Amino acid sequence: MQEKALPVGQVRFTGGLCEEKVQLVKDTVIPYQEKMLKDELPSAEPSGAVENFRIAAGLAEGRYQGMVFQDSDLAKWLEAAAYTLADERDPKLEARVDEIIGIIAAAQHEDGYLNTYYTVKEPGKRWTNLRDNHELYCGGHMMEAAVAYYEATGKTQLLDVMEKMAVHIAEQFGSEEGKQRGYPGHEEIELALIKMYRITGTRKYLDLAEYFVLERGRQPHYFQLEAERRGDAPLHGGLLDYAYSQSHLPVLEQTEAVGHAVRATYLYAAMADLAVETGRDDLIRTCRTLWDSAVNKRMYITGGIGSSAFGEAFTTDYDLPPDTAYSETCAAIVLTFWARRMLHAETRGCYGDVMEKAFFNTILAGMGEDGQQFFYVNPLEVHPDTARHRHDQRHVRTRRQGWFGCACCPPNAARFLASLGQYVYGYNETGIHVHLYAASSATFTLATGLVSLTQTTDYPWDGTVDMELSMEEKQQFSLSLRIPGWCRGARLSVNGQEVDAETRPAQGYVQLHREWKNGDTVRLQLPMPIERVLSHPAVRATAGKQAFMRGPLVYCFEEVDNGPMLSALAVDENQEPVLEPGPVPVLCVPGFRLPEQSLLYSADRPTAQAQVLRAVPYFMWGNREPGEMQVWIHSV
Amino acid sequence: MQEKALPVGQVRFTGGLCEEKVQLVKDTVIPYQEKMLKDELPSAEPSGAVENFRIAAGLAEGRYQGMVFQDSDLAKWLEAAAYTLADERDPKLEARVDEIIGIIAAAQHEDGYLNTYYTVKEPGKRWTNLRDNHELYCGGHMMEAAVAYYEATGKTQLLDVMEKMAVHIAEQFGSEEGKQRGYPGHEEIELALIKMYRITGTRKYLDLAEYFVLERGRQPHYFQLEAERRGDAPLHGGLLDYAYSQSHLPVLEQTEAVGHAVRATYLYAAMADLAVETGRDDLIRTCRTLWDSAVNKRMYITGGIGSSAFGEAFTTDYDLPPDTAYSETCAAIVLTFWARRMLHAETRGCYGDVMEKAFFNTILAGMGEDGQQFFYVNPLEVHPDTARHRHDQRHVRTRRQGWFGCACCPPNAARFLASLGQYVYGYNETGIHVHLYAASSATFTLATGLVSLTQTTDYPWDGTVDMELSMEEKQQFSLSLRIPGWCRGARLSVNGQEVDAETRPAQGYVQLHREWKNGDTVRLQLPMPIERVLSHPAVRATAGKQAFMRGPLVYCFEEVDNGPMLSALAVDENQEPVLEPGPVPVLCVPGFRLPEQSLLYSADRPTAQAQVLRAVPYFMWGNREPGEMQVWIHSV
Repeated sequence: MQEKALPVGQVRFTGGLCEEKVQLVKDTVIPYQEKMLKDELPSAEPSGAVENFRIAAGLAEGRYQGMVFQDSDLAKWLEAAAYTLADERDPKLEARVDEIIGIIAAAQHEDGYLNTYYTVKEPGKRWTNLRDNHELYCGGHMMEAAVAYYEATGKTQLLDVMEKMAVHIAEQFGSEEGKQRGYPGHEEIELALIKMYRITGTRKYLDLAEYFVLERGRQPHYFQLEAERRGDAPLHGGLLDYAYSQSHLPVLEQTEAVGHAVRATYLYAAMADLAVETGRDDLIRTCRTLWDSAVNKRMYITGGIGSSAFGEAFTTDYDLPPDTAYSETCAAIVLTFWARRMLHAETRGCYGDVMEKAFFNTILAGMGEDGQQFFYVNPLEVHPDTARHRHDQRHVRTRRQGWFGCACCPPNAARFLASLGQYVYGYNETGIHVHLYAASSATFTLATGLVSLTQTTDYPWDGTVDMELSMEEKQQFSLSLRIPGWCRGARLSVNGQEVDAETRPAQGYVQLHREWKNGDTVRLQLPMPIERVLSHPAVRATAGKQAFMRGPLVYCFEEVDNGPMLSALAVDENQEPVLEPGPVPVLCVPGFRLPEQSLLYSADRPTAQAQVLRAVPYFMWGNREPGEMQVWIHSV
Repeated sequence: MQEKALPVGQVRFTGGLCEEKVQLVKDTVIPYQEKMLKDELPSAEPSGAVENFRIAAGLAEGRYQGMVFQDSDLAKWLEAAAYTLADERDPKLEARVDEIIGIIAAAQHEDGYLNTYYTVKEPGKRWTNLRDNHELYCGGHMMEAAVAYYEATGKTQLLDVMEKMAVHIAEQFGSEEGKQRGYPGHEEIELALIKMYRITGTRKYLDLAEYFVLERGRQPHYFQLEAERRGDAPLHGGLLDYAYSQSHLPVLEQTEAVGHAVRATYLYAAMADLAVETGRDDLIRTCRTLWDSAVNKRMYITGGIGSSAFGEAFTTDYDLPPDTAYSETCAAIVLTFWARRMLHAETRGCYGDVMEKAFFNTILAGMGEDGQQFFYVNPLEVHPDTARHRHDQRHVRTRRQGWFGCACCPPNAARFLASLGQYVYGYNETGIHVHLYAASSATFTLATGLVSLTQTTDYPWDGTVDMELSMEEKQQFSLSLRIPGWCRGARLSVNGQEVDAETRPAQGYVQLHREWKNGDTVRLQLPMPIERVLSHPAVRATAGKQAFMRGPLVYCFEEVDNGPMLSALAVDENQEPVLEPGPVPVLCVPGFRLPEQSLLYSADRPTAQAQVLRAVPYFMWGNREPGEMQVWIHSV
């Protein structure tokens, strides 16, 4: 059954890990990134993101700086700022945002076109290379920012700008006579247009999104025609070719998650949105097939996707090496966008499970504890000396960085975390869905009236979740609670009365349908033993190894806790790991360390020394002394 | 104590694996490669190797074809042909070789210069890019061919040509006033010049080799000066930079095996040769240090070196991934050249062990059973679907190929195998050294007289080696037998009388010093149990796994014997593997197959099915139906 998310400002975090991260974004990440984008940090290379708009607007002189998609860094930051303003208005921040919006508006061409790269650096060449450049992508990000800022503040300037841009785009592209049958090389604008449609009701935006999705991969191939017009060689038959941009086949014929992982998941997310808006069954069926491919065959245990640095891409089933992993922070974020949209379409636990997994592991890992250091790629095993020497690990950073030449991830993490409230709950006329557990409160407008829900929990550190409902009159509706896929033996009670949570529906949600009254309480207990997780035996890189999880959190072993040469460690199959209590629960895993041997290869069996191994949540790795890190470990 | 090798023709193989391979080279490989180099195989892309010489000689018109080092393919083949002629004269082959030599002679310039690339494609540019191009390398290979052909036939035409070339080179390069201080970007000519010196006695060649070795890496850096003269950018500070060609430091300051593995080992081999010829202690000390780095920290269990496709290069200590391995066939061959030369310098078992390991595993793997299919790279784990999809495995071929665009390996394997006799024995005035065990006979000229030695053995399939000595008069000398590093419990008897072989010298050779008489027999028994071998725990990719060896042979698991998804297999720690007798002993290893699970990650422990796993010698893999292959396996 379809559902909607609550707008960002209507979910309030009230403690615990989620609130901590949302607050960090508001207090530190947003101001830090603003300085970065405005080139106000003397320690960093200038980004040029704001300056490019000033130049395009004629407010400054200079040369275009940065990637062809530099505009999108600013757009993502604007969107992040908008979400924090939705949560709590802040006149000073708002004034600074308005100033930037004024510059953006001034950079827009008369006809609605907006893109600083083509305005400043390649005037006259707009819309000539949809395959490689990112005009539509940048436009999409700015549309998302416009929608978020309008929702947060009611101000329309940026929305007006982006409507004008949307209209301009709709005049250029489409299947109608006289238009080019183009579509973006990097998907993103599709879901942005659907957001624009939802907020404005302008059907044209939805139609354009649908056109972009369904035109993709059709013959004659637009990117080939376009390349011929430019006089460029068409993409030759390399390893990825058009699969890189998911344009190797019409989308409804696609069955495997392929190519650039961020592009792919933006496309799939838009397809889910379209399925919701149009009710097209073929779209949701295709989404389910692609979901199975992406998540059940090509996803790391951390929710990371894209196992190859080449093309930042998916490769093939079960190819999930931990050390050469790409697992881009952005890709985990966009996977979460997709999962959230699948939940809009249908309430199935698998989507919530992946949302939770990607969030608590890869996305959180993408940002350091200080909010000013970021990972772009998120391998599951890091050996600094090897990363320095292997060309096929040159994408690996063994410490978080303050910024990147290609800085897509940091502001993406900011906007994701600033909008975290959207991911916790869903609702429709018949009830409330709880997808994520986090200390929070929210109010829903059901068919039967207003209902407020308060979660009190220390999740993900503890599995007990207490919920309290408040309302004026008694109301009949259903409260659906996700029973996480990792959980065995969930217990549930309503007003202290045990309810069967185990014989749950196949869809992964237990549905409490009843007449609720003010003050009703629900307690969900999700046991969180330390679990030893195995991968599918076809995953060559991790077959025979185990990973430790507790609740939704994947743990990892760091050099700072366990000494160097983590590969010499093995866990003891016959002894149980224990939890060391503390603000962050640490796992103490009985194990062994193999001694160094003089020979590189030997038939001798060395005597391993007992050692208690310590594991910390994966998302926290790399916040202390730098060194080795490893998620998967072998056992003896 | 220094030793010499027996010339190729003076060791005769008399059955077993070695004779089989040497015979295959003579009967099949040499004629096949001759056709390939002469562009007589309609099924293959033309090589141009002979045609380039014809064009350079003015005997044909056309364009240069192939790599900048295409000449060396022909040179290696000539050397291979020469070795087979040394073993047994063949007038027809000799006539064809002489015809080719006539073409080569005609392609030589008046001043001695010989290189078809620069003659045909870039006339006037000779000696302008020693860093990237391969004039000295090609010259070196042709010198080796010239020496081998002279030794085999006594004919001097090619040797005269290459002496003229050597003189020409010596006029160009050196530390003397008026010469360029250049040296080859790809080492090879150093050891060729030493061969030329040994056969001609011309000291100048030895001096030139010494100059090339010792000038390398000095400041001001020749490759930088040369690049400036060309107007090219100097090598920027990339991952390998000058370490790629071992010119990052003067060679005597080098302590780690770095860069392109073939280049590196040619250099180290030449250093060992120089140490023998000059008695320079600094050279042999540096060789020992580099040996420790290459062999004890950066070598695969198969004797393969170069763990990265990028630069075909060494990376860092213990970085030995099996699936992305480069392990070029040529690199194992040149490692063996180096090992053989270290044995010339000092009789230590570690050199013989590596020679044996690289030969019986990687080098033999480089050529198919039919002698017409070759591997260029030799990974220790192959999963065809993954190799097709991963950019960082694009160098991996899952089947041997008939030839390569860069065809350095096939004729290198041919010349190595055709000269295998050189590797079996060494001798000096005081005695005979047996480095390899193989059914063979050989005659030595000791200070005390002529001694013939006959080995009767089915090695490496069986560890019993019977040796018989024949001579006219009694002679006092030592017979030194290598006790392989893999062997425990070797037994030795002389004329049926047990001798202590276990309390052997640290150097890995047991020395039988006595008065020998005609008909004396020696029996060496090297027990060959099936061994489970572990890698050093710092080898991340194989830590916790085991490899199976029997004698010097590494075994591997193939899909054709074990079914698909080899990663699902595990060996049983508690049951002993057994040998299935047959012409090729196959290992039957009790083990398990993990069932496929529906989830990608699960805390459930699936019930493994018992399965007897079958392993075949690594060098034989890929000769049946193509599929997965794996050397390292985990256990339960």
